[in-house]
Amino acid sequence: MPMPERLLIEGVRSRVLRGRTGRRVRVGIGDDCAVLRLPKGHEALVTTDFSLEGVHFRRDWHGPEVVGHRCLTRGLSDIAAMGGDPVAAFLSLALPAKLPQKWVDGFAEGLLDLANEFDVPLAGGDTAQSPGGILADIVVMGSVPTGKAVLRAGAKAGDWIYVTGILGGSAAAIEALRRGKRVSRKDYPEHFHPMPRIAVGRLLRERGLASAMIDVSDGLSTDLGHICEESGVGAEIEAGAIPLARKATLGNALHGGDDYELLFASRGRVPAQIQGVAVTRIGRVVRGRKMTLLRGGRRFELKAKGWQHFG
Amino acid sequence: MPMPERLLIEGVRSRVLRGRTGRRVRVGIGDDCAVLRLPKGHEALVTTDFSLEGVHFRRDWHGPEVVGHRCLTRGLSDIAAMGGDPVAAFLSLALPAKLPQKWVDGFAEGLLDLANEFDVPLAGGDTAQSPGGILADIVVMGSVPTGKAVLRAGAKAGDWIYVTGILGGSAAAIEALRRGKRVSRKDYPEHFHPMPRIAVGRLLRERGLASAMIDVSDGLSTDLGHICEESGVGAEIEAGAIPLARKATLGNALHGGDDYELLFASRGRVPAQIQGVAVTRIGRVVRGRKMTLLRGGRRFELKAKGWQHFG
Repeated sequence: MPMPERLLIEGVRSRVLRGRTGRRVRVGIGDDCAVLRLPKGHEALVTTDFSLEGVHFRRDWHGPEVVGHRCLTRGLSDIAAMGGDPVAAFLSLALPAKLPQKWVDGFAEGLLDLANEFDVPLAGGDTAQSPGGILADIVVMGSVPTGKAVLRAGAKAGDWIYVTGILGGSAAAIEALRRGKRVSRKDYPEHFHPMPRIAVGRLLRERGLASAMIDVSDGLSTDLGHICEESGVGAEIEAGAIPLARKATLGNALHGGDDYELLFASRGRVPAQIQGVAVTRIGRVVRGRKMTLLRGGRRFELKAKGWQHFG
Repeated sequence: MPMPERLLIEGVRSRVLRGRTGRRVRVGIGDDCAVLRLPKGHEALVTTDFSLEGVHFRRDWHGPEVVGHRCLTRGLSDIAAMGGDPVAAFLSLALPAKLPQKWVDGFAEGLLDLANEFDVPLAGGDTAQSPGGILADIVVMGSVPTGKAVLRAGAKAGDWIYVTGILGGSAAAIEALRRGKRVSRKDYPEHFHPMPRIAVGRLLRERGLASAMIDVSDGLSTDLGHICEESGVGAEIEAGAIPLARKATLGNALHGGDDYELLFASRGRVPAQIQGVAVTRIGRVVRGRKMTLLRGGRRFELKAKGWQHFG
């Protein structure tokens, strides 16, 4: 902090500086720290996520708006997975000297369009010249009523396991891109335009419907593994019940990442749709520590084989 | 968030995971977000700062402990400049595949020693494999009584201008390093082991002694310029009054950066020492917008010529 003038990221600055202080952000960009007010009786949530060129995105695969959108989605999705509300975002952004201004403008547009959609002011960050590729680190601060955050721990044997939306679309897109295919954004909206499930997460928390929750960012098998580990339980998943994205295989859905859907355990009755988002029951929580995949009447051990960054 | 297992940063993990939840950090590393509790009647402060190899440090100039220490100092110093108290830190860290584990251990040691000294738990972050050099982004969250943060705006004509500690040591060290000199840590403690002025900042805020405050991270001329701009005032600085580090020139002190001292305006009587740190009066706030340097009975225009990253 703060964003110094020495770097021309006008695309970000010009839109960010338009009076984005308000009820929650008392002091935004332009001081040593941002000053933020939390709602009374709330705790703070904080999450940070890198978006690094060549690791989380590739400039030849992902347009600047897509990179900006996905960058903020990563942070907002973590807030959703706690049942929280986003309060403000902070962006640390290092750019190579020769990056066209057009790229920066596109990145800012993608990020800020999503920020506006969720009413999350960009309240600060840092800028630098990058010695290598484009480096972004997004920080999102959120709030949740004290003691009410939905953790990964909390699932109990007998709970049902649910997932929002559809899975595997992002991994399928990456596979197609790797094969050198022409990939249209419309065919893979889950990859190019993932939506953080803030409203669903909030409602699940308010109604006490989720005993444990995580967002599917590293792949269903890995993220379910985190819930099992933190809760000290096992899980059985019905392969046939997993909601697949249009071009996704079961493998994409199980082990692909970047879906940004919510995976949660519940003892209660969960509606089949929440805030317009499908919610699907895919299995149940069991005793022990094993994860099992049920497929065609047979049982397979489900191992965490999470998403690997593409180098 | 969270720190995934896929990267072996054992040096950080093993020390970080030792029960660092507590009164303020309700949930630390290991969930989608950290959950933090602020003291009653307090607002949140948030600051983010990059430490990028080749931009903010060089591996041949700075040992890993120094890089870790300076990385966290950048964040804590911003909290100090608001008169706040640090609550928790978050580290996003991307490391090249071939980096020796020893480097990571040293970095963690430098960062965590300082964190322990200020009782700031590392409550989360992100990790990734870096496509280039070492990339760190430190986030510090702090707290301050509601409405009491000391901003850059607030200085008024007639206020005196003060600075803590000594200036220019860091710029002098960089100059010596550039000239290929052997530079000992003992000769330039301000560069290799800067201390964030948390206690001083807090006391100034508690006693209402600072009308405006900033930390000297970009150089006195630039940071004073920020206070003048935000406060709508000018300033006169006595060259002879500026407390110089042992090997520093006036130019180092005026335009060097990375000092991490506090620069503030005050209408009140400020003690010459606070919490063991010298506090020196170096000038006064005047009407208008100009910054003037008084030297040998003559007046010079003082232009903001802040610190440039060494590429």
